[in-house]
Amino acid sequence: MDSEIKIVLDACGGDNAPDEIIKGAYEALKKKDNLHIIFAGPEEEIRQKAEAYPDMPTDRVSYCNATEVIEMAEPPVKAIMHKKDSSIVKGMNLVKNGEADGFISAGSTGAVLVGGQLIIGKAKGVKRAPLAPVIPTMNGASLLIDCGANVDARPEHLVSFAKMGSIYMENVLKKKNPTVGLLSIGTEEEKGNALVKQTLPLLKECSGINFIGPVEARDLPFGVADVVVTEAFAGNIALKMYEGTAKMLMSVLKESLTANFRSKIGAAMALPSLKRHMKAFDVSRYGGAPLLGLKGLVVKAHGSSKAVEIKNTIFQCMAFSKEDIIGKIAAEMNKEEQ
Amino acid sequence: MDSEIKIVLDACGGDNAPDEIIKGAYEALKKKDNLHIIFAGPEEEIRQKAEAYPDMPTDRVSYCNATEVIEMAEPPVKAIMHKKDSSIVKGMNLVKNGEADGFISAGSTGAVLVGGQLIIGKAKGVKRAPLAPVIPTMNGASLLIDCGANVDARPEHLVSFAKMGSIYMENVLKKKNPTVGLLSIGTEEEKGNALVKQTLPLLKECSGINFIGPVEARDLPFGVADVVVTEAFAGNIALKMYEGTAKMLMSVLKESLTANFRSKIGAAMALPSLKRHMKAFDVSRYGGAPLLGLKGLVVKAHGSSKAVEIKNTIFQCMAFSKEDIIGKIAAEMNKEEQ
Repeated sequence: MDSEIKIVLDACGGDNAPDEIIKGAYEALKKKDNLHIIFAGPEEEIRQKAEAYPDMPTDRVSYCNATEVIEMAEPPVKAIMHKKDSSIVKGMNLVKNGEADGFISAGSTGAVLVGGQLIIGKAKGVKRAPLAPVIPTMNGASLLIDCGANVDARPEHLVSFAKMGSIYMENVLKKKNPTVGLLSIGTEEEKGNALVKQTLPLLKECSGINFIGPVEARDLPFGVADVVVTEAFAGNIALKMYEGTAKMLMSVLKESLTANFRSKIGAAMALPSLKRHMKAFDVSRYGGAPLLGLKGLVVKAHGSSKAVEIKNTIFQCMAFSKEDIIGKIAAEMNKEEQ
Repeated sequence: MDSEIKIVLDACGGDNAPDEIIKGAYEALKKKDNLHIIFAGPEEEIRQKAEAYPDMPTDRVSYCNATEVIEMAEPPVKAIMHKKDSSIVKGMNLVKNGEADGFISAGSTGAVLVGGQLIIGKAKGVKRAPLAPVIPTMNGASLLIDCGANVDARPEHLVSFAKMGSIYMENVLKKKNPTVGLLSIGTEEEKGNALVKQTLPLLKECSGINFIGPVEARDLPFGVADVVVTEAFAGNIALKMYEGTAKMLMSVLKESLTANFRSKIGAAMALPSLKRHMKAFDVSRYGGAPLLGLKGLVVKAHGSSKAVEIKNTIFQCMAFSKEDIIGKIAAEMNKEEQ
């Protein structure tokens, strides 16, 4: 049997907490014998709900009592500093102290980012810890790095994102020799802002990555590169535009297909094929967005995560831990420092 | 009758030149008695094609012979400096010299931007001339300003974009008291990069615009603001991500609806409703993207423009000219300077 992996789950974070969080954990525990879950949250309530599953493997479940909740709208630095008894602060401390292998939250992105940096801390040689969601594409999936952790990054930060992202895609998503693109406003090298122009020569010279040059946002949904490197402000805008456009078009599609009797019949006939094709874009199977470059593993699950996303995020953490991504990133970053 | 408006059309620009350009001009000429079109391009070829329309109003068509073509991949500054006999350079010179009211090209965006600034020049008091495409939304349309003219803009430039964009939306798209949002990575004021944080207080204090605060990319497709102000790099990424995501989803939708016999029948039944709903997102009716803040009118039509887009871009230019947007922007910018 593989060695035990302990994951802390923020039982208070996200739109569907705690029920879907607990359900996701339950489903993951049933599949993986070497998984141990620690729920961070109000112990009594969580225990009661968890033990309501008759076949919950209670010997592989424990609790970290936390009485405070960090709300989505709270200023993150203040929340992390003051809410010492919150599920995020207490849960992250378990990772920091080596009592758990990873931490997952579907709660406040800001608090997860700040907590990761302040409580767990950056690994030696890492200057910025990027948030790196996996986005679905026509080709499979791409890693968009950074999407919200560090605005106003410098060229050397983007180079380290390219390295960390390549390690993640190669080892967790099992993409051999992943391609790396630099997000820009044209594929020609003379286009782009000052940051892109300064970063380009550094990425070209960088050994150990498969750099393919500047890539355009319009090609991201088609999977133009496995790792798309960008500063967090632009990355966040690309990610949110992707989500927003897909959501808007799906709502128009739904509205048009249910508009009248004829369209409803048509929709019913086309639905199986439509669902089959759309399934490829279901990002839930890739889990959440890891915060890379920390001393411990932190993953931000989507705020709207249901049990299936939580389960897959747990599996993602297990792969991350098993493949020793933290060790591999540390080795790469310290090679860079010499 | 309204006074005559003369528009120069780059007959060499875009994927469908010259045929669709000529057709679009023909259709516009049939609708508007006060329109005069000047085709910039190889005169003999264009004249032959234009006069092949038996009822072409030849008294309202003239030609500006241009023997060179600026290719899409050419470095724009060099192209504008050296290709003096290109349709873009010669066409823009007509606007500069007051021989035409506006210039439209579906060719190289870079060359149009550079040519606009170098040949026609910025209006007094304007420090940056932004490119401002109209994007379709669930609410109608929004102006995304700037989308490619000026990377690395400063806060005062963004304030002038807010003013110019408001004038355009109010007068050309007839949106009363248009709302202005600042593109950011959250609606909270503490989020965003340095540029956003420095621009926010300036926009709040700015009189004459209807500023509603920071807006998120995910809300753009839903029409969160009439004018979305942003620096060109982020704006271009938002625009291209919008285009790319829509294109990708439409191709998946098409593939899924034609996948088998059953889905094809369903699609055929649902299609009328689907087409009706999707029509709202047809951006062609808003014309091209104006380059605002110049001494003369320059509009970049989409590279893939067909006759209908060209026709609508001509109508947009006529509204722009009739409403004296250039005069209104100049008045606003010079008020600012005092």
